[in-house]
Amino acid sequence: MTTIPSPELIASFTDIVGPGHALTGPAETAPYLVESRGLYRGTTPLVLRPGSVDEISRILELASRTQTAIVPQGGNTGHVAGQIPREGKSDVVLSLERMNRIRDIDPVGNVIVADAGCILADIQKAADDVDRLFPLSLGSEGSARIGGNLSTNAGGTAVLAYGNMRQFCLGLEVVLPTGEVWDGLRRLKKDNTGYDLRDLFIGAEGTLGVITGAVLKLFPKPRGHQVAFAGLASVEDALALFDRASSLCGPALTGFELMPRLGIEFTTRHIPGVRDPMETSHPWYALIDISTSDAAESAERMVQSLLEAGIAEGLVENAVIAQSEAQRKALWHMRESMSPAQKPEGGSIKHDVSVPVSSIPAFMAEADAAVMTAIPDARVCAFGHMGDGNIHYNISQPVDADRGAFLARWREVNAIVHAIVLKYNGSISAEHGIGQLKRDELAAIRSPIEIELMRRIKHAFDPAGIMNPDKVLRQE
Amino acid sequence: MTTIPSPELIASFTDIVGPGHALTGPAETAPYLVESRGLYRGTTPLVLRPGSVDEISRILELASRTQTAIVPQGGNTGHVAGQIPREGKSDVVLSLERMNRIRDIDPVGNVIVADAGCILADIQKAADDVDRLFPLSLGSEGSARIGGNLSTNAGGTAVLAYGNMRQFCLGLEVVLPTGEVWDGLRRLKKDNTGYDLRDLFIGAEGTLGVITGAVLKLFPKPRGHQVAFAGLASVEDALALFDRASSLCGPALTGFELMPRLGIEFTTRHIPGVRDPMETSHPWYALIDISTSDAAESAERMVQSLLEAGIAEGLVENAVIAQSEAQRKALWHMRESMSPAQKPEGGSIKHDVSVPVSSIPAFMAEADAAVMTAIPDARVCAFGHMGDGNIHYNISQPVDADRGAFLARWREVNAIVHAIVLKYNGSISAEHGIGQLKRDELAAIRSPIEIELMRRIKHAFDPAGIMNPDKVLRQE
Repeated sequence: MTTIPSPELIASFTDIVGPGHALTGPAETAPYLVESRGLYRGTTPLVLRPGSVDEISRILELASRTQTAIVPQGGNTGHVAGQIPREGKSDVVLSLERMNRIRDIDPVGNVIVADAGCILADIQKAADDVDRLFPLSLGSEGSARIGGNLSTNAGGTAVLAYGNMRQFCLGLEVVLPTGEVWDGLRRLKKDNTGYDLRDLFIGAEGTLGVITGAVLKLFPKPRGHQVAFAGLASVEDALALFDRASSLCGPALTGFELMPRLGIEFTTRHIPGVRDPMETSHPWYALIDISTSDAAESAERMVQSLLEAGIAEGLVENAVIAQSEAQRKALWHMRESMSPAQKPEGGSIKHDVSVPVSSIPAFMAEADAAVMTAIPDARVCAFGHMGDGNIHYNISQPVDADRGAFLARWREVNAIVHAIVLKYNGSISAEHGIGQLKRDELAAIRSPIEIELMRRIKHAFDPAGIMNPDKVLRQE
Repeated sequence: MTTIPSPELIASFTDIVGPGHALTGPAETAPYLVESRGLYRGTTPLVLRPGSVDEISRILELASRTQTAIVPQGGNTGHVAGQIPREGKSDVVLSLERMNRIRDIDPVGNVIVADAGCILADIQKAADDVDRLFPLSLGSEGSARIGGNLSTNAGGTAVLAYGNMRQFCLGLEVVLPTGEVWDGLRRLKKDNTGYDLRDLFIGAEGTLGVITGAVLKLFPKPRGHQVAFAGLASVEDALALFDRASSLCGPALTGFELMPRLGIEFTTRHIPGVRDPMETSHPWYALIDISTSDAAESAERMVQSLLEAGIAEGLVENAVIAQSEAQRKALWHMRESMSPAQKPEGGSIKHDVSVPVSSIPAFMAEADAAVMTAIPDARVCAFGHMGDGNIHYNISQPVDADRGAFLARWREVNAIVHAIVLKYNGSISAEHGIGQLKRDELAAIRSPIEIELMRRIKHAFDPAGIMNPDKVLRQE
């Protein structure tokens, strides 16, 4: 069990970072204690903002010795409260926000080496400045930090072609709970030398150590880019069109996002500047993103062939192709606004699930029916990364219903939807992770041996149990 | 410590698989005891050939209870003796060769589910039969089995565009040392639910459990395919040409292999049917493989543009483009024959190393100088996956030298070459793994904390120490 830090201990932690970077007042610590959706609100006696790996090492050494719980935090954009200290406990928050230096960038070697506190958008920009692409892209990229992206194995909109954060990482630097530093900052594409420690820290949500630096892959910038928006009759047609697109475009298919009519209505109603790109109305929509490395004409040819085939086969009811970078951005902006646009519509019960791609239509039909049975006038606004099988199955409250009463049914509705997800051998957390929100549910659905193996790893890395306790796994 | 199995215990193991599948005679067990290069020869009282996951589970449960060492083996094609029982010990060999069933194939979902004992070429063929590609490709694909490919995180010739075996695996089924079965056979592209157990078993060389089944990704088949062969003046020019190709082709660049003149001479001299595709002679050669998902013309355009640019910039001295599938295969066959062609030239001291791609020319120059100082007439035949930074830095003995005396210097030459690899922050095992061959060297070059973390993982998964002992890590 972790302990409550004494004033003397708080003073010792403060000495490590300097008084200007140790926050204790309620007003100062407040921004570190609540996550974006407001579902969790933690408590802390101390927020530390170290400026170097050495300071983090000394903090963890002291924490281990004194049994003080440490909660690493990046941009505080996580959706499962993994970065939020526990309520009613005395976890010390370790903010990586001052660790925001790009250490090196090598366009020939196609790598960037950066502190874990770098903001994702700054990494994208640094890559762009040397004519390279860093593909990770997500709604919160202006404030999310790469340490958090790594710790949650972030996904986003470019997973289809490029993969999750895991696939972008060549090497890591991690401060272990004891304060020891593991220097795994390798820049190698191939290195089969022992157990895969890197992938163990990635996605561990700060429960095994603190990621302080990373070597990330860069990619050649695509020369051709096309974005199309297609109106579709059904999710089945969306799946058939995705199969077509995947076969026609191969790795050039860089996005295939599914959106319902309701999402278009929400975004055009609430998000300034968003307008419906088509005059006709359709039950479903696909945003199709194609990037080609050679000539721009390849992307044009691909998008034309795809839409022609889709229309000829009766899969596409209507379609538009963005004619400029501004139009391409507008279509993506509409997609990125799906979740924010639900806010003015009242409470929204959210799910971040995945199923095998070929099971999406069946899953959606079954989930819709079950949700409507439980809450007859609920408004399902399910959208997401169809090509990855990852659906943000969100449900807005019935019009004029009581927000609080609706949100009080969060766990009940989760149980309904997740049961159908599991029936299709899906995941209850496709890209957001486990944190506090899904911890007990994970323990309930996974085999005892899997939870046991995770516990053994946790114990092997953090025997004192100070690293982000009660996240991912409940503390024993 | 593990024990020597008694006749009664051997009888109990035999009961599990049936007498026809428990081999004890020297002639029967011999093929399981020596690896392809003949560097290691192990001993065993028993080779078990189970036919089901249940049998493997019972074998491991019994082994754990009786402290019997178990060595899992697939196609016995590994290069570091990870699959060979220890010499002078009584390790029981667990051959997966009867576990060779394809359990399911889903072309819409782009997955294949297979037993770990399936031969790699059979997986490639099954994918091909449903118009899909399974990209892992390596010289021994006709006998290597996917359990071994997973346990060593196999690389090969398609890593540049598609990645290592790790990137092809969505889910695993593993029998743990206790006999418990971890069913992680998920088919999901995105699943952020807890620690990454899958990637821990991949590359663990059978020291944490026995992989019995896997869900592997399939890919759309490319429609365009071009292979070019370019004569180059230097490794520097090869790097510049690779940079060009990478930028021009993006993910369509599916291979960029470097070969020295000496390798062309060896293959044309010793491998039936291989002939030099060019009349001119060049110090270095690149085999460039381009695959496009859309029309075949895209690949043609790309290869033409690349070679034109290469010639115009003085990077390419001469080049040919294969005009038929037969010619494409012939070029690849020459590349695949580099290693076998060294055999008739006498002893060969081999290295499977990687460095950051941009450091390849400097590494090669320095390694050549150091090797020639140590063994003046040695014939360096360094070739490999330039795009991955992975060079098979092989050295053939001097003409007319004594084979045994030359091979006796294996460790000495390794030390020379690996020191230069480490200077460039490279890997001493890019794709073959650690096994017995590089185990002590790994312990010597890695930080104590990294070896310690690996030991803790080993202990957490296999407290009895029965799983492939003394591989990767020396048993304590």
